[in-house]
Amino acid sequence: MPSFTVFKGAKDGVPKKSTTQKPDQLVGDQVFVRITASGICGTDLHFLTHDMVLGHEGVGVVESVGPDTKYLKKGDRVGWGYETNSCGHCDACISGEEIFCSERAVYSEANLDQGSFASGAVWREAFLHRIPDEITDEAAAPLQCGGATVFTALYDVKPNEVVGILGVGGLGHLAIQFAAKMGCRVVVLSGTDSKRGQALELGAHKFVAMKDADTKELEGLWPLSRLLVTTSVQPAWDTLLPLMAPKSRIYPLSVSAGNLVIPYMPLINQGIAVQGSLVATRTVHRQMLAFAAAHGIRPVIQSFPMTEEGIKEALDKLDKGKVQYRAVLVPQ
Amino acid sequence: MPSFTVFKGAKDGVPKKSTTQKPDQLVGDQVFVRITASGICGTDLHFLTHDMVLGHEGVGVVESVGPDTKYLKKGDRVGWGYETNSCGHCDACISGEEIFCSERAVYSEANLDQGSFASGAVWREAFLHRIPDEITDEAAAPLQCGGATVFTALYDVKPNEVVGILGVGGLGHLAIQFAAKMGCRVVVLSGTDSKRGQALELGAHKFVAMKDADTKELEGLWPLSRLLVTTSVQPAWDTLLPLMAPKSRIYPLSVSAGNLVIPYMPLINQGIAVQGSLVATRTVHRQMLAFAAAHGIRPVIQSFPMTEEGIKEALDKLDKGKVQYRAVLVPQ
Repeated sequence: MPSFTVFKGAKDGVPKKSTTQKPDQLVGDQVFVRITASGICGTDLHFLTHDMVLGHEGVGVVESVGPDTKYLKKGDRVGWGYETNSCGHCDACISGEEIFCSERAVYSEANLDQGSFASGAVWREAFLHRIPDEITDEAAAPLQCGGATVFTALYDVKPNEVVGILGVGGLGHLAIQFAAKMGCRVVVLSGTDSKRGQALELGAHKFVAMKDADTKELEGLWPLSRLLVTTSVQPAWDTLLPLMAPKSRIYPLSVSAGNLVIPYMPLINQGIAVQGSLVATRTVHRQMLAFAAAHGIRPVIQSFPMTEEGIKEALDKLDKGKVQYRAVLVPQ
Repeated sequence: MPSFTVFKGAKDGVPKKSTTQKPDQLVGDQVFVRITASGICGTDLHFLTHDMVLGHEGVGVVESVGPDTKYLKKGDRVGWGYETNSCGHCDACISGEEIFCSERAVYSEANLDQGSFASGAVWREAFLHRIPDEITDEAAAPLQCGGATVFTALYDVKPNEVVGILGVGGLGHLAIQFAAKMGCRVVVLSGTDSKRGQALELGAHKFVAMKDADTKELEGLWPLSRLLVTTSVQPAWDTLLPLMAPKSRIYPLSVSAGNLVIPYMPLINQGIAVQGSLVATRTVHRQMLAFAAAHGIRPVIQSFPMTEEGIKEALDKLDKGKVQYRAVLVPQ
């Protein structure tokens, strides 16, 4: 296989089919993965016009391995996410925080000829993660970035915390499941009432339609010790801050340009932290997969064929907020 | 003693002498304290036109005690700060976080006829703190709010952290001492070079004059794991964020109206938290006093007579940034 199919961003914002050369010989701990499923993340929408292969929620099967690989072999099921390499030597790397390595290779910044909207990809073994048998390829795909992101924001949660989840979408519907299975009381804050039933099914203990919520309903909530903001735009902080418990933490998880603008004194007076959080380190990523397997956490997915047409349709639906809750591309 | 002298805010912004009635009989765990020293905090400047007794960094000697007092007696040296009562029953109170009690009595919100710009005050024993013998009354005063505030922001610090202190003033000069004695490497960030000598004397390991700092000097700093912002206005976040280590925390300690406005993606990409923090709980307050006594931490003070003239002079100097580093009023 001298080359494989990839789908790249294009000037008109509609991804186009292209090819990436497979190296004649895999070197070091390189692994060639035949892709079987790819999630679509909200972040992908930011790069539709860039000359790069799209997608960073990849799952597939190992086809061949380089000479220095240590634990993967042909036929193993693996996944990868936002980060695919780091220096291995800096303070961040040697302390297991390689996601903060200043030479990290992450989506849209490095390896632009590789991605998960593709029939294959070449990555370092060190940044590939085994998929537990209990999780199908399609279900595993959205966990590689969406799942990793919310799991990281919950990683040090205590079971007796009250976790607020703002937004029921690709991230939110996974966060509800993780937090509920961690023993937390889960309060879902959504715009309208339309997702109440699904949120409760996923494990939410309380559901609030923010547009209709009156003071009494909001005051009746448990104070939130942690709030995951999974909406794609910054929320109405004025409404949210009174819901927070003293010494609580707010995790804004969406990618957003510009400034964070949030009322200042409520943070001081209640000892609230705004906690930046990125996707998972490798060790947290692997624990996320094990946790999801053990607890039956599964993305609710809509599948699309991995073709120019299928990708366009999926991206259009995602952009309009019509995907419930995560789109997955499947090579044809 | 049927009444005692107090100094209250006034419409013209110049505090005026007045009197507060002492209760005929102390009840419950009330304690009457004869004041021997009062610090002046930047927060006092916000209330100069309010009809209330000013000051919340009080130190004095117990003169008489109510029937339910348990451990204080006449002659004991005590201090108090920003908080002087709480409900005792809510989740915050019973978990030792009474500073977040929703019925808390704090400066400017309750007990407006009591304050530390006064010859005496009546407070609950439960919110008075013994002053260690090693600390004089005048030195103890600025610890009651300024010291408590910075100690709280350092309370869970690890000795191998790199602590940045932005601003060398009433809070900053205490934070330098606490952090240095906690074993941290201390990086002081100041506007100009003028306070370099004093900062190093107080325990700073590195000093940066931000106005003159070039990229090389900033890049040569240890990445900050914690930054205490002690300036009275919000700083230039663009300059500060690149100095922060991954997973570091920023503590904005000043009181400021309006919004916190800070670049968003650097927080996400480096996993940085903006951590709201208020003054100390009682248990932290008492540990702060013990720590200060054991480690010889002392405010650098300028004393003024506790008279209308002395108060006016001290407040004028504070407002102009001319106090090095904390003003203390001494009753005449």
